[in-house]
Amino acid sequence: MQKLPDISHDFAAWYQEVIYQAELVDSSPVRGTMVIRPYGYAIWEHIKDTLDEKIKKTGHENASFPLFIPESFLKKEAKHVEGFAPELAIVTHAGGKELEEPLVVRPTSETMIHYMFARWIKSWRDLPLKINQWANVVRWELRPRAFLRTTEFFWQEGHTAHETVEQAREEVLLMLGEYVDLAQTYLAIPVITGQKTESERFPGAIETHTFEALMQDGKALQMGTSHLLSQSFAHAFEMQFQNREGQLAYPYLTSWGATTRLIGAVVMVHGDQKGLVIPPRIAPIQVVIVLILFKNKDNSAVIQAGAALERSLQDHGVRVRLDDDMQKSVGARLYYWEVRGVPIRIEIGPRDLEKNQASVTDRIGLKSESVSLDQLPLYVVAHLALIQATLFNRAHERMMSSWHKAAKLAVFGPILEKENGIYQTGWCGSADCERMLKQYKAFTRCLREEKTFDTCFNCDNDSLQDVLVAKAY
Amino acid sequence: MQKLPDISHDFAAWYQEVIYQAELVDSSPVRGTMVIRPYGYAIWEHIKDTLDEKIKKTGHENASFPLFIPESFLKKEAKHVEGFAPELAIVTHAGGKELEEPLVVRPTSETMIHYMFARWIKSWRDLPLKINQWANVVRWELRPRAFLRTTEFFWQEGHTAHETVEQAREEVLLMLGEYVDLAQTYLAIPVITGQKTESERFPGAIETHTFEALMQDGKALQMGTSHLLSQSFAHAFEMQFQNREGQLAYPYLTSWGATTRLIGAVVMVHGDQKGLVIPPRIAPIQVVIVLILFKNKDNSAVIQAGAALERSLQDHGVRVRLDDDMQKSVGARLYYWEVRGVPIRIEIGPRDLEKNQASVTDRIGLKSESVSLDQLPLYVVAHLALIQATLFNRAHERMMSSWHKAAKLAVFGPILEKENGIYQTGWCGSADCERMLKQYKAFTRCLREEKTFDTCFNCDNDSLQDVLVAKAY
Repeated sequence: MQKLPDISHDFAAWYQEVIYQAELVDSSPVRGTMVIRPYGYAIWEHIKDTLDEKIKKTGHENASFPLFIPESFLKKEAKHVEGFAPELAIVTHAGGKELEEPLVVRPTSETMIHYMFARWIKSWRDLPLKINQWANVVRWELRPRAFLRTTEFFWQEGHTAHETVEQAREEVLLMLGEYVDLAQTYLAIPVITGQKTESERFPGAIETHTFEALMQDGKALQMGTSHLLSQSFAHAFEMQFQNREGQLAYPYLTSWGATTRLIGAVVMVHGDQKGLVIPPRIAPIQVVIVLILFKNKDNSAVIQAGAALERSLQDHGVRVRLDDDMQKSVGARLYYWEVRGVPIRIEIGPRDLEKNQASVTDRIGLKSESVSLDQLPLYVVAHLALIQATLFNRAHERMMSSWHKAAKLAVFGPILEKENGIYQTGWCGSADCERMLKQYKAFTRCLREEKTFDTCFNCDNDSLQDVLVAKAY
Repeated sequence: MQKLPDISHDFAAWYQEVIYQAELVDSSPVRGTMVIRPYGYAIWEHIKDTLDEKIKKTGHENASFPLFIPESFLKKEAKHVEGFAPELAIVTHAGGKELEEPLVVRPTSETMIHYMFARWIKSWRDLPLKINQWANVVRWELRPRAFLRTTEFFWQEGHTAHETVEQAREEVLLMLGEYVDLAQTYLAIPVITGQKTESERFPGAIETHTFEALMQDGKALQMGTSHLLSQSFAHAFEMQFQNREGQLAYPYLTSWGATTRLIGAVVMVHGDQKGLVIPPRIAPIQVVIVLILFKNKDNSAVIQAGAALERSLQDHGVRVRLDDDMQKSVGARLYYWEVRGVPIRIEIGPRDLEKNQASVTDRIGLKSESVSLDQLPLYVVAHLALIQATLFNRAHERMMSSWHKAAKLAVFGPILEKENGIYQTGWCGSADCERMLKQYKAFTRCLREEKTFDTCFNCDNDSLQDVLVAKAY
């Protein structure tokens, strides 16, 4: 294996290389798509299972809708089709014939699901209707990057319908809160929430709430979004219901999604020069037991101790892997687990065993010490929790120290362009001023409730509220 | 709701109607595809979780490969492309342009996965390689039927590579065995296993092992298959490895899959005139508690008892739903849960509560009695197990009584055409004789190890081994 590129000098190259070396992905023969290898997919399964539980606990049900959407459906909501048209993949032939109406491979399923909602929602008693779908979607990408921006990606898309706009907005914020907990408690990634500006909204939404995180290179990543949709979707699909007053009304709709991009966020927030660092709560392997074995010697005591420890850790709910490889050098084995970011490594050899102990090292440099075998399981459980907390705190400190307040783009723009980071500033609300950010390769990330600045970062008009500005993925 | 069509006179109409009334599916605006509604999807999740655990326990890892396959990949294995060409959906345009090479929406992923295997397999140390993918696939269907034959369906596809043909065949049979256990232990569906004849094999396989079940109308359903593939796949993708002797060799490949069709099998094996019957082990709702409430009365004691029972059943690992609907009549509520096939229904009203008991009825007519509230949780756990076993036994008896031995097609063909059922007979192995079955709308289902008959069902040549013949879905 070649050495990883320098993370502080060429973050992009480091990212590309570390995800291949750790076998999260492999390059695919179809441009822009991903082959997610077992280790990468196992991380996704942990994220998916965690989020799926949250979605179900908040009263949503999973369902499944077709991969293909008639082209005419997408055209029913003007802004929606305008937003997605350039990214569509289109099936024109099937079953040996040209199709009468081309089918779009879904870039998102609002139109298809709203078509079905219109059939299912007749009365206020059918509301709220709270559906989620785990699916693959396709958006043709000109500059693909594994996990971050790929032509095919995996996600969940929640779609709900409500009697009132207040209930719909409550749902939008409820699911945003679940996403924030997923990010902070499980991925150990601190996030900032807020509304997107009009130019950054989901096509067809009247409010897009985002949760954003800071990557180690000082760029922001949109981690996921939760939308209050325009009622034009309900109008487009004639989705009417009889309300409590007996009148026909249009429901208020939401949608919200999070994707395989979250894996990229974990890599970019926690990784270091030695490779990945996977937070324990989503780590497919939380602990690796590396047995120190010798050719032509009796290794049975070490092998037995390793197997006993493996069972004991499993009994304590720890996801553990036993490495008894005798083909590779110990150095190569340690490198193998290090680049994969396994939180805790336990080494057991004959000398450790004589003292009834093992050598424990964590991936993030907190501790490296000998621990007696009897105490190991509880030690490991406690230490995994400490690693999880430490990862969050480190990322949080990094985010706070990169979060600057600055009044005028002319001053902070050149600094941002060179040094990255998040800049909180004032904004008049005009798209013309917003566009000025592009000269420094920056974009608005989200609006903030507070108002710290009197005037806009660009013009001399009053600021309406603060806005966060950063370079972004 | 309209009454269900007569299950014994028009099974096909009954099937179409029951899956809609029970809200497993809804018809989709895209011909041949399915909208799987929450109740149907929850059944799929239970099947999927059960099978996924089996796949992982037998040493396979999940991964993910692209939805799109370059057309040229499919053409690399001659029989494979010949088998799938008529069913392909093809993306010709994407990102606003015509593609240089059209992309096929995967009908199955052998070619894509073998392309990656060729990259990953260098030495015998990389073998066995055991990968599984949960995915949607697309095969254009001219006569679609929900779950049974749909243009888009969901499945898992296992793909493995081995050093020797013996190891590959062992894998094929291992996974067939896991499928059989899924069907019999969880779906309560007895199955028959055996090899497919050459004309019924997977395109590119040298052995296709199937597991088949008998539906209530006497037709057979192929539940899933496990294939030993031709090495021409390995040749096509130049998949070579250095074997233990230091020479370059081609690995032996398998693939095996099971699909959302299994939901259709559950409906067609266990359903009755009143609706679905879901086996407890895969039932999203195993027990429904129907509270008998009265308008303008104090229902609080009944509501409290229902909530306490719900918690107590959950503590015993039972999936329970509390129905406290006061809008609908009790009759409508009972019908609602009956058509959905919930295994056990518990009714609690004020009169039951006075006696500290509840009225328990199971969906399949075994028992209907009053049980004291204290004993209910253990009663329910035991009764769910009895229902599961009874469903399997009933289906097994039905299968055995429909399984006939018959020597000559001229005799059993006309009976089969009218009465359906499975016919075990002798066969010379010729495809010409096999084709004679079609005049009675029948097909070979699988070969049997035993040899009961001296001559072929059609000609006077010697029989090589027994074969099962039936009409099929």
